[in-house]
Order: sequence, then structure tokens, then C-alpha cells
Amino acid sequence: MSDSPTDPNASFQSVVVSGIQPSGTLHLGNYFGAIRQHIELHATVESYFFIVNYHALTTLHDAEALKKYSFDVALDYLALGFDPDKSHLFLQSDVPQVNELAWIFYTLTPVSQLEKGVSYKDKVAQGLPANAGLFNYPILQAADILVYGGTRVPVGADQKQNLEICRDLAIRFNDRFGQDAPVLPIPEPYILDEVAVVPGVDGRKMSKSYGNTIGIFDEGKTLKKAVMSIVTDSTPLEEPKDPETCNVFALIKLFADDAKREEVAAAYRAGGYGYGHAKKELLGLINETFAEARDKRRELEANPSYVEDVLREGGRKGREQAETYMERIREAVGLITTY
Amino acid sequence: MSDSPTDPNASFQSVVVSGIQPSGTLHLGNYFGAIRQHIELHATVESYFFIVNYHALTTLHDAEALKKYSFDVALDYLALGFDPDKSHLFLQSDVPQVNELAWIFYTLTPVSQLEKGVSYKDKVAQGLPANAGLFNYPILQAADILVYGGTRVPVGADQKQNLEICRDLAIRFNDRFGQDAPVLPIPEPYILDEVAVVPGVDGRKMSKSYGNTIGIFDEGKTLKKAVMSIVTDSTPLEEPKDPETCNVFALIKLFADDAKREEVAAAYRAGGYGYGHAKKELLGLINETFAEARDKRRELEANPSYVEDVLREGGRKGREQAETYMERIREAVGLITTY
Repeated sequence: MSDSPTDPNASFQSVVVSGIQPSGTLHLGNYFGAIRQHIELHATVESYFFIVNYHALTTLHDAEALKKYSFDVALDYLALGFDPDKSHLFLQSDVPQVNELAWIFYTLTPVSQLEKGVSYKDKVAQGLPANAGLFNYPILQAADILVYGGTRVPVGADQKQNLEICRDLAIRFNDRFGQDAPVLPIPEPYILDEVAVVPGVDGRKMSKSYGNTIGIFDEGKTLKKAVMSIVTDSTPLEEPKDPETCNVFALIKLFADDAKREEVAAAYRAGGYGYGHAKKELLGLINETFAEARDKRRELEANPSYVEDVLREGGRKGREQAETYMERIREAVGLITTY
Repeated sequence: MSDSPTDPNASFQSVVVSGIQPSGTLHLGNYFGAIRQHIELHATVESYFFIVNYHALTTLHDAEALKKYSFDVALDYLALGFDPDKSHLFLQSDVPQVNELAWIFYTLTPVSQLEKGVSYKDKVAQGLPANAGLFNYPILQAADILVYGGTRVPVGADQKQNLEICRDLAIRFNDRFGQDAPVLPIPEPYILDEVAVVPGVDGRKMSKSYGNTIGIFDEGKTLKKAVMSIVTDSTPLEEPKDPETCNVFALIKLFADDAKREEVAAAYRAGGYGYGHAKKELLGLINETFAEARDKRRELEANPSYVEDVLREGGRKGREQAETYMERIREAVGLITTY
């Protein structure tokens, strides 16, 4: 089936698949860690981006919050430049087939493998209730990828274990049910560029759970207050400063082009440039970078039926692609359907 | 919502729900243990009977066998008197919604509860591979019941634990998501009449795993050979015998009316009546009892498109009922859908 024995996916169309957490307000850490690269990627390869509201249920049992977060993250992505004419953006719950595929995968997964899941163990260690949803999480994630025949999955370096489970399942499935020809591709990681850790206002990694975030769509007083609260040392204004040890500069670097970065670094080193100046610089850069996205978001917020249409059309495409794979998968395992 | 504080299901329509294992050839143990009562029940209450091919995947990875078993058990039920005008008979895989509901339930189920599952522990003890499908089995079973709003579930006395998990989930779900009005009924067991254990040809409980079965649709030489192989003691023909300790008589009792039973018991006690006579009697009773069903089954086998139509129509009804509940459930937990 394959053109080359070294590429197990030669017989499969190239498909990028990625889940988006509906975890509430997006912050700069999310933006530089993943979103910016998602936006770049979706315009160049056929991609399925879906908002993982099934997964969110493992830690969120609040209907209004879940609905709001799910819709908001669609707004955010569209505002930040996701173009629904280029790729598909939709709700995980609009493709219920993922749960069917997950069931088939459970019957191929040793319980012992799930017991070793890093995310599961971490969450339990953090004191989150150990429900079976958290336990089964990596399998639903694998189904999320393979139900669209995903061949590439953008992941951070820290998410490689879950992709390994997915690859294992695809291999095991083909082994057991696809003797004549592989039914599923073996997805490859598309490792996202390592950005320097994005510091939060307290200097630790920016993370919702630390409460140290600056929101992408924060503006006005809220944004100013957040930026002004970034922790710095107490070097007096007139003295020279080291930009490389400063949280404000670490954030400026992410936004500024090379010329601007050099200019600010030189000012730090020269002295007579205070942290207040740097924060003002950062504030200007944030405002500039997200000005268009903020306007776009306000527009979208005023026009929710457009967003619903985008999600509906994305969902339709997602279900269509998922059904193509599910028909082959059901046939391979012997599940009869009459509809 | 409820007419009486003592009946939590007063606001729900009465619905009987039952899964049928597609485990290959049905035998007399299946018939007297469940099928006969299913057939009686389906004609008197609105019932959803479905062939649990998703569950079967936990122990069967053979597409052709699964398809054949799934279709055959539909043939068997229809031949034995299931009337599709009275209730619904369909394939579990025609209602993929059960997997979606199962996912929601996983997020409400402590892992520790599944670790205690009797069936899971038993199967593992029997050496069956401990896959996550076996682990999650009771949750899919709960979804199977509640996706149709099942209020009564025919169960043997030994299956009460799994129904407890289902009842727990319904209560927990209503607690967390149905403050204004319960979303799900709390299903009650409909305990099937205890039949005396049906002995297999070797005297142990009749069970596929002991290889000691007599098939409902066995006939001719196959049936005769099975009946003649029933183990008896070596009391000579002319001596009196105790019917109550005889495997052949235990089977005769299940088929015979009171008069016939007394007649045979008297012959046993009188002497001059050998086990060969008793086996001939049993053979006659089996042939008589299933004559019509065998003819019907041959007819159905010659007309598979009729069986497919029954399953298609049953599946349509099942999906319709499941969607009614899923819409309420998705709304209650906050899963948006656009389709």
C-alpha cells in the first residue's frame, strides 16, 4: 500500500489534528506556547481544530461555565486570525463518533498502561478527584486524533507520552484488524517551537493555576494593572540593569522585533532606564500586537450567529471526515450498522 | 415533579431495557435463564432489547465472528417469538450515543469503584486480558440503560451489582446536574424468576465455557447425540430411581407440564423405566417445544433482508429515544451541539 517501506503513512492523506482546551480566558503563555503556532499552521495544511469540551468534563461540572468557555475559545481563535476558509474549527461534541472509537480503543488498551499515565498520576497528585474520565483521558485523545485520520499532531515536548499511546493504539489496531492494508495512519508529533518559558507577573511560569497571568484580551486598566504588577528587583532607576534576568524584558522579547529588542536591551544596560519605562514599553507592545484581534473579537461578540455558523460548518466537516474513518473501522472490527 | 415522594420515577415513562449477548449459539441454559422471560416481557411493556456488540468487543476481536453472532442472535430471538410490532430489537452499534453518555458517566465515576467491579475482577481471575474495555464495562452498561430512560431492567440475581452502579450514576447525575428536576430515572431491577439451575450434559451448570450445552436450535443427530450423552448414574433399568437426583429429569421438568412431570416421576420411582427411556422422553419434549421456532428460524434465514429491516427499524426507534435523552443530558452538563 505504501510508496516507501519507511513511511507507514504514505497511503494516507496528510491531516493535522489538534485539540483546544476550553479553559477560560486565554493568556500570553497560551499564545506564545501554542496558539500563535496553531494559527500559522492552520493556513498551510488541512487541519481539524476542535474545542475539547468532552475532555473538559473531567474537571468541570458547571454547565454554564462549560458552554461559555467553549464558545469563548472559538471567539478567541477567530479573533486571533483563524480563518475558517482555510481549516476546520469546531466543537468536540459535534463529533460524538470520538466516543465510539474510544470504546473500541478501550478494548485494545491494557488497564496497566492507563495506570501509568503521567497526566493521570499528576492530576491525582494535585488532588483532583480520580474519576474514570481522567483515567481514560489519553484514549479519548487518541480517538480524537485517529477519527480524522490525523497524521500530524502539534504537541509541546511535554505531551509526547500521550501521543505515544495514540501511536501504540494505531499500530495495535492495524496489527489486529488491518492485515491486508492499514486502516489507521500512525500519527507523528509536530513538535512546536520551544519558546522561552513565558513568565507570569510573579516570575514563575505563566499559568492559570498560579493566578499570575496576563490575558490576551485584557485591555485598559485591567491590562495596565497586570503589567505594572510584574515583579522586578529593586535596582534604582539610574543604575545599569541586566535585561536577561528581568521578567519584564523576558516578555518584551516575545513581542519585539530584533531592532526593538536591541534598543530596549541597550537602554537597560546604559542605566537611567527604569522598570517603569520597561513596563510602559511592554504595555505598548501588547496593545499594538493585539489591537486588531481585540477589534475583531468585539465584532464577533456582537455577531454570535456568525461564530455559530463557523462552528456548525466545521462540525459538519469534522463529522464527515470522522464517518469516513468510522465506516472502515466498524467494518474492520465487525460492528454492523443499519443506518 | 413526582406524584409521590416515594417513587423517584413517577415523572418518567415506564421503559424496560435489556442487553442481549451475541455469544454464539444459544443453549437451553440461556433459554430458561433469560430468553423465555424476555419474550414474555417484551409483549407486555415497551421494551428496548439490543444486541451488545460493543460489549462483545471486550473479549472478541474477530470481525466475521462478531458480525455472525450479532445477526444470529437476532434470528434466534425472532424465531423464538420476539414480535417487532410489540417492542424494539436492534444492534447496540446502531445507537452510538451510548458511548457519548458513557464518557459523561466516566467523569462521574471514581476509578476506585471500577477497581472493585465483581465482573472485572472475575474475568481477570479467569485469565482474560485486563483491557480497559472490561474495566469500563459497567459504565457502558449503565449508559445502555439510561440512554433510553430505562426504569426497569430484567436481571438475574447475580447481576445486581452492575445495576447498583447504574443507579448510583443516575442519582449522582441528578444530584449534580438536575437540581430543578431529575434528568434521569433511577432504574429498578426486574428480578427474573429463579429457575432451577439448568444442568449441562455433564451435570454441571449448563455453560458455553464448560462445553456441556444443548443448543436451542440443535436438531436431528446433533441433538440426539447431546441428549444421549447426559450423564446418569448406573442404576439398572428394572430398579426404581430417584427423579430428583437425575440430570435428565431436571431438564424434563423444565419442559413438561404438571401432568407429564408427574407421569415421568412416577415411572422413575416404579422401576422398569431406564435412563434411555427418559432421554427419549426429553428428546421428544425438546423437539415439540422448539418445532415452531426451528421452522420460523429457517424461514428467517432464507429472508435476511426481513431481519435487517427489523433491526433497522428497531435501531431507528432506539436512536430516537436515545436522542431525546441525550439532548436533555447534553444541555444539563453544558455540551453544545450545532447539528
